[in-house]
Formats: sequence, C-alpha cells, structure tokens
Amino acid sequence: MQRQLFVRFHSVAAINAPTLAKRHLLSKFFPKMAPPYKLIYFDKPGRGEPIRLLFKYGGVVFEDVLIKREDWAQLKQKTPFGQLPLLEHNGKRVNQSVSICRYLGKLVKLAGKDDWEDLEIDAVVDTITDLRAKITIVRLEKNVALKKTMKEEALKETVPFYLSRLDALVQKNNGFLALGRLTWADLYFVGKIPIFSEFMGEDTIAKYTNLKALIDKIHALPGIKK
Amino acid sequence: MQRQLFVRFHSVAAINAPTLAKRHLLSKFFPKMAPPYKLIYFDKPGRGEPIRLLFKYGGVVFEDVLIKREDWAQLKQKTPFGQLPLLEHNGKRVNQSVSICRYLGKLVKLAGKDDWEDLEIDAVVDTITDLRAKITIVRLEKNVALKKTMKEEALKETVPFYLSRLDALVQKNNGFLALGRLTWADLYFVGKIPIFSEFMGEDTIAKYTNLKALIDKIHALPGIKK
Repeated sequence: MQRQLFVRFHSVAAINAPTLAKRHLLSKFFPKMAPPYKLIYFDKPGRGEPIRLLFKYGGVVFEDVLIKREDWAQLKQKTPFGQLPLLEHNGKRVNQSVSICRYLGKLVKLAGKDDWEDLEIDAVVDTITDLRAKITIVRLEKNVALKKTMKEEALKETVPFYLSRLDALVQKNNGFLALGRLTWADLYFVGKIPIFSEFMGEDTIAKYTNLKALIDKIHALPGIKK
Repeated sequence: MQRQLFVRFHSVAAINAPTLAKRHLLSKFFPKMAPPYKLIYFDKPGRGEPIRLLFKYGGVVFEDVLIKREDWAQLKQKTPFGQLPLLEHNGKRVNQSVSICRYLGKLVKLAGKDDWEDLEIDAVVDTITDLRAKITIVRLEKNVALKKTMKEEALKETVPFYLSRLDALVQKNNGFLALGRLTWADLYFVGKIPIFSEFMGEDTIAKYTNLKALIDKIHALPGIKK
C-alpha cells in the first residue's frame, strides 16, 4: 500500500519562537532524519487542514501522508476507532483531530499562559466544532428532499447564529477568537473554512467582516502564506 | 428568577494532593466565603455530571446552580451560545462542558505529566464524545418510526463498536482509559454513564467487564462515593 500513498514533506521556515527556529535548523543540518511527526489523513483539507496549518505556522517538519479514498477501506481496519486523522510521533500514534490541534497549539506556542486561558481557547474551539457537527449532520443526510430542507434551515438559522456570535467574539478580542491575541483557536477556525465554504459559500462567510479579516490575517502569516 | 433556582453547595472532603487539602482547609476556615466556582446547569446529570464528579473528586467547593426546564427559555438568551453548562470563576464565565472538564482535570491533578500525555487523555475523551454525539442524533430524531430504526442500528453497530474498543483500552491501560492510571478521562466517562444507560440500558454496559469494573472503581472513590 505504501507505494500508492502520495507523501509530501513540509519544511517551512521557522518564524517566531527561538525553540522553533532551533528545531528548523536541526532539520536543515540533518535533512535525512525522518520527520519527527507524521500526519495520516485523506488527500483533502477536511479534519487534517487545521493540523497542517499548525505545523506550517510553527515551521515544524512533518510527513504529510495523503490517503486516497480507494485505499481507505483497507487502512480503516488498522486504525484505533476507524477514523482519520492519525498523528504519529516517537513510535506512538493517536487519533482525534481537535486533540491533535491542541497538542500542536502548545508545541508552536499558540496556547494559553495558564489553565484558565487554555479553557477560554478550548471553549471557542469546541463551539466551532459544534457548528461543524451541525453541518456534518446535514451533509450526511441521504434523503435528498430532506437534506435540502435541512440545509435551508441551517443556512437560515444555525449558520447565522454561530457566525454572528463568533464574529462578535473576534470584534471583542482585538481581532482574534480568544484572549485578545493569536491562539491555536484562530488557526483551527481557518483550517475549517474549506468545509464551511463548501457548505455555506464563501460569500456567506465574507459578510461577517471580523471573521473575514481574521481569515485574511491568518492566510498572510509567514509559514502559512502560499 | 434567582429564587426559583435550587442551589446546592458541595464541600466534600479533600482526598489526595496536598494543594487540594489546603484549598479544602481554606473553605473550612472561611465557610462564609462564596465558593470560588459556580456551575450552572439543568437539574439533571446530562453534560453537568462529569463536571460535578470532578469537583467532588477534588473536594473543590462549588455552587451547583440547578436550572429548571421551565426557566431555561429566559436564561438561554443570556448565555454566550444558547447552551449550558456554564462555569463561573473570578468573575469570568465560560461554556463548553468538555473544555470545563479538562480545566478541572488539571485543577484536581488528574491531567497528564506532559503535553503528549494530555493528548492521549484528550483523544479518548473526544472518542467518548463521538459516541455521545452519535447517540444524541438518535435521541433528537422526531420521526418515531425512523428513530426506532436508528436506535436498533445504533445498538447493533455503533454502541458495540465503541464500547468494545473502549473496553479493550481499559484492559490495556491497567484498568483505566488512558496512561495506565486514573485520569480525568475516567471521571468524564463515568459522568456520561447516566446518558449512556438511558439509551442502551445498564445491562448493555455491564457486558463490557473492564468498563464495568472501571465504573465501579470510580463510584467507590472517596469524594464520589455516595
């Protein structure tokens, strides 16, 4: 199966903390060393994108193992809970994308300064996940007519409910989702935009000017900027 | 509205870490001080129960504000995202039950020793939340016939899929869900048992002997034991 996988290696310039710069330097001098982190996910944004953004932001070298849909059935049996993404590090392997993002948020110095600050970040991340979960229920509905009604309802109620409140949070928080400064919640949110855009259209999101400004700001960050 | 609320105060004997003992002592000598934490949730287990278990385990004094269903519509407007539970501390207020549990897990010394250990705890917690979310979709289905089919399917596939894997995790982890020792993931899981039991029946859970032993062990802990 290995040969069927398309593997990308990322080594983006380290940008902020000295420890990150050191880690990057290390990878420069020992280019043949296996990257310390391996992300296993499908060859699409989905739940993998916030993880990739965090790696890129931090300039952390990682192996981006892209699974093709046709290879999934075979791999699924070998995963702990039948799910991707998986993160491998030091011979250990974990699932759960949000947990992985939280871990990487600490690694790239985008976490809180104390436990309460971490709680504030976590709460907004869980709220974004709530919105994603509500969208997923609609996306997975198989009855076409029902799905149409559910989508209309979501676009009329659920989406404005969440986006208006998140937009107000960003306005209150100095242009960020939490703590008045850049945290991993912002990268998590921006990593979810491909899923959100597909469901509600980019125009819908663009109406929320504070969220739009946040998205543009994250996309302009060194490391993330294409 | 305040007078309609039934408020319980908890002050359970501190049990393990010296800091917890100290905090408890403090509350003993200054019994008139307002409890440092206020939990606002409905007068049922639901999403509040894992939070209550963590407070009780740690002997942390908290105000347990129990909201009656008939008072909810009025309060809902004042919550950040139309949801309970809310945790109040030092004049600040946050939502999101899992985030609150993680914060309390650190407070009562049931978190990991490093970031990777925290990731392992978080991953199993998110997996339990996945199971809860799949159950919630069935519980919220309004079409009675469809709900019946969905429940049968969940009991035949989703529930055994998750419980068998969680059971194996407990077997592998020295009788706990993560890290081979008691963590807040165990209290989170046991706090979810009222919801799980209501859906699948206590007998279903009891079939998974490692999970059953874990539940009994948590219920026998000082502070939690009734």
